[in-house]
Amino acid sequence: MAELSYKSAGVDYEALDAFKRACQREAVGTRSSLQRHELTEPADVRGDSAFLLETETEFLAHVEEGLGTKNLIADAMAELTGQCYYRAMGIDTVATIVNDCITCGALPISVAMHAAVGDSAWFADTHRSAELAGGFAQGCTQAGAVWGGGETPALKGIVQPGAIVLAGSAVGRIRPKSQRILGNIQSGDAMIFIASGGVQTNGLTLCRTLADRLPQGYRTLMADGRMYGEALLDPSVIYVRLIAGLAAAGIVPHYAAHVTGHGWRKLMRAVEPMVYKITDLGPPMPEVFNFIQQTGGLSVREAYATFNMGAGFAVYVDPAQADEVLKVAASAGYRAWRAGSLEKQGDRKAVEIEPLGITFESDTLQVR
Amino acid sequence: MAELSYKSAGVDYEALDAFKRACQREAVGTRSSLQRHELTEPADVRGDSAFLLETETEFLAHVEEGLGTKNLIADAMAELTGQCYYRAMGIDTVATIVNDCITCGALPISVAMHAAVGDSAWFADTHRSAELAGGFAQGCTQAGAVWGGGETPALKGIVQPGAIVLAGSAVGRIRPKSQRILGNIQSGDAMIFIASGGVQTNGLTLCRTLADRLPQGYRTLMADGRMYGEALLDPSVIYVRLIAGLAAAGIVPHYAAHVTGHGWRKLMRAVEPMVYKITDLGPPMPEVFNFIQQTGGLSVREAYATFNMGAGFAVYVDPAQADEVLKVAASAGYRAWRAGSLEKQGDRKAVEIEPLGITFESDTLQVR
Repeated sequence: MAELSYKSAGVDYEALDAFKRACQREAVGTRSSLQRHELTEPADVRGDSAFLLETETEFLAHVEEGLGTKNLIADAMAELTGQCYYRAMGIDTVATIVNDCITCGALPISVAMHAAVGDSAWFADTHRSAELAGGFAQGCTQAGAVWGGGETPALKGIVQPGAIVLAGSAVGRIRPKSQRILGNIQSGDAMIFIASGGVQTNGLTLCRTLADRLPQGYRTLMADGRMYGEALLDPSVIYVRLIAGLAAAGIVPHYAAHVTGHGWRKLMRAVEPMVYKITDLGPPMPEVFNFIQQTGGLSVREAYATFNMGAGFAVYVDPAQADEVLKVAASAGYRAWRAGSLEKQGDRKAVEIEPLGITFESDTLQVR
Repeated sequence: MAELSYKSAGVDYEALDAFKRACQREAVGTRSSLQRHELTEPADVRGDSAFLLETETEFLAHVEEGLGTKNLIADAMAELTGQCYYRAMGIDTVATIVNDCITCGALPISVAMHAAVGDSAWFADTHRSAELAGGFAQGCTQAGAVWGGGETPALKGIVQPGAIVLAGSAVGRIRPKSQRILGNIQSGDAMIFIASGGVQTNGLTLCRTLADRLPQGYRTLMADGRMYGEALLDPSVIYVRLIAGLAAAGIVPHYAAHVTGHGWRKLMRAVEPMVYKITDLGPPMPEVFNFIQQTGGLSVREAYATFNMGAGFAVYVDPAQADEVLKVAASAGYRAWRAGSLEKQGDRKAVEIEPLGITFESDTLQVR
């Protein structure tokens, strides 16, 4: 079987990233609107996972995000098994939004749903509709946010018949302002990784391409006896309670990373040049990652460049606080471990995964 | 030619509205999350065009909205004329979001873009991409808001190849709290209508169906000599400066309505039963409405039940303030007129368009 790579699976980040940069240029030109509102935009906030506005007393956060193509797998699995997986899709949609929101230290207060269908008949399956709505509410509750409205357009001719675009937005707040996660990483900082529930919401296009190549498709059994398609739909972990717990304990991480597209390359998203030395890969990763890697003929490097590989979120903290962070994580119900540490090497920015002998230099990540 | 109606054009509001009600039921269950944030959700805010959260000192607004299918017309016209219409699409996307935001009195502070494509190659047309980004920025500037980030996923298998879903969200604020538009309408209130720029962002599915039926399609010339397709793409009016101007003048309307789906039936969206007597249709409406009505064989009733018919926004105010509101509107650059007044008739809720002999009773509007 030919080796799979993310580009061969149909997602070309280059054209997308070029448009994102054009948007950021235009967006910067709208800053002057803020004066009349007595608001300011923090320096260097553009390109972060959450947009921030500073008021007299707090920061307001604004995040727009989407589930991607994960629900196509839910649709395919529903046809194969007769099960409905849209509760997980509702949870995952909230997860992808709020896990971005908290990277700056903002706790989400309101989450809105955007559900665009190709045909309003999508909603005629009332069980599936109810599961989607129920899952979205469940995600909001896990995130400690209220479900604050949304939009459900029927876009015939834009969205495929039978398909749905799941996305949404969050409003968050940081208060006091001192709880903002600033990106002030230091040489010697400890890297704390928090376990994921599986692929979560990234790399799904590649996962679907792989299913197409397998004779049994999503029904292929993995080494642990579970179906590949079922494992792909394991719900995402919502990391809000971690950030809320750290805030309550008076700990402000130097940086927080939501490990999404670009896999572990995302770990070096902070502006400051730094080398991230990972020495502990943590507990065994979910079986689905071994399966994708082996069955898809992915190199270990490609796998770590694309997927979260068992680590869905990371915080970088003063090493003196590392144990306390692990305690907060455990008491909030997360599986966390000390994965490595940061090392200043002049202007070099890289992620070194020592147990695997893999290094990603900064030129492999261009998302800002 | 058979008469066109909105249902025959492929949008069935019933299944959509049922899902919206399910979402609202689930969403209400997430309210308890707000306690830890020291926030409250105002009573009766569910079903309004903007969601609100009350803080000690202000209200925060959260809106998620989308452009609908209007950009399919931009695509079709681009093929016919070689022109790019995506600057208008960018403006319109912002308009549909912020015009909902201001109905509660909230001024938008941040607007985020959601642009989902079926194929990342969409962005390879760099002129179109630049126009879209430029238009979105222009809309934000007109709305007095900053462009606060966004999301641009490639959703192969969900979004049609070559198509784009344009949507987004806004964060707004009301301060002081006394500037919240409460819906406290009174018998005798004056109805002030503000002119639209054309169909704006609603009824577009029907407009496209009509084009399919015309031998010359979008190139059909209207009575004023312009192409039908070109007129459909006239940019939406952004009404933020009206609400900001009223706030500056110390005027709080009793109600504000963004006239979108359901046309003039939207004018009776306030909870309180009231009869809305319209006596002045205002200046001649944009020619495109005459064209759609006559060419599509729409009854006048159907036209007013679907389109804004030249009135894109309405505020209801104390009649003693009507002249001042008209002055504020004019100085902010809007064409506004006193269209009629509210009359209490017990529990009856209806819109009576007297010059046309048309009445919509409340059972023709079920959007809350």
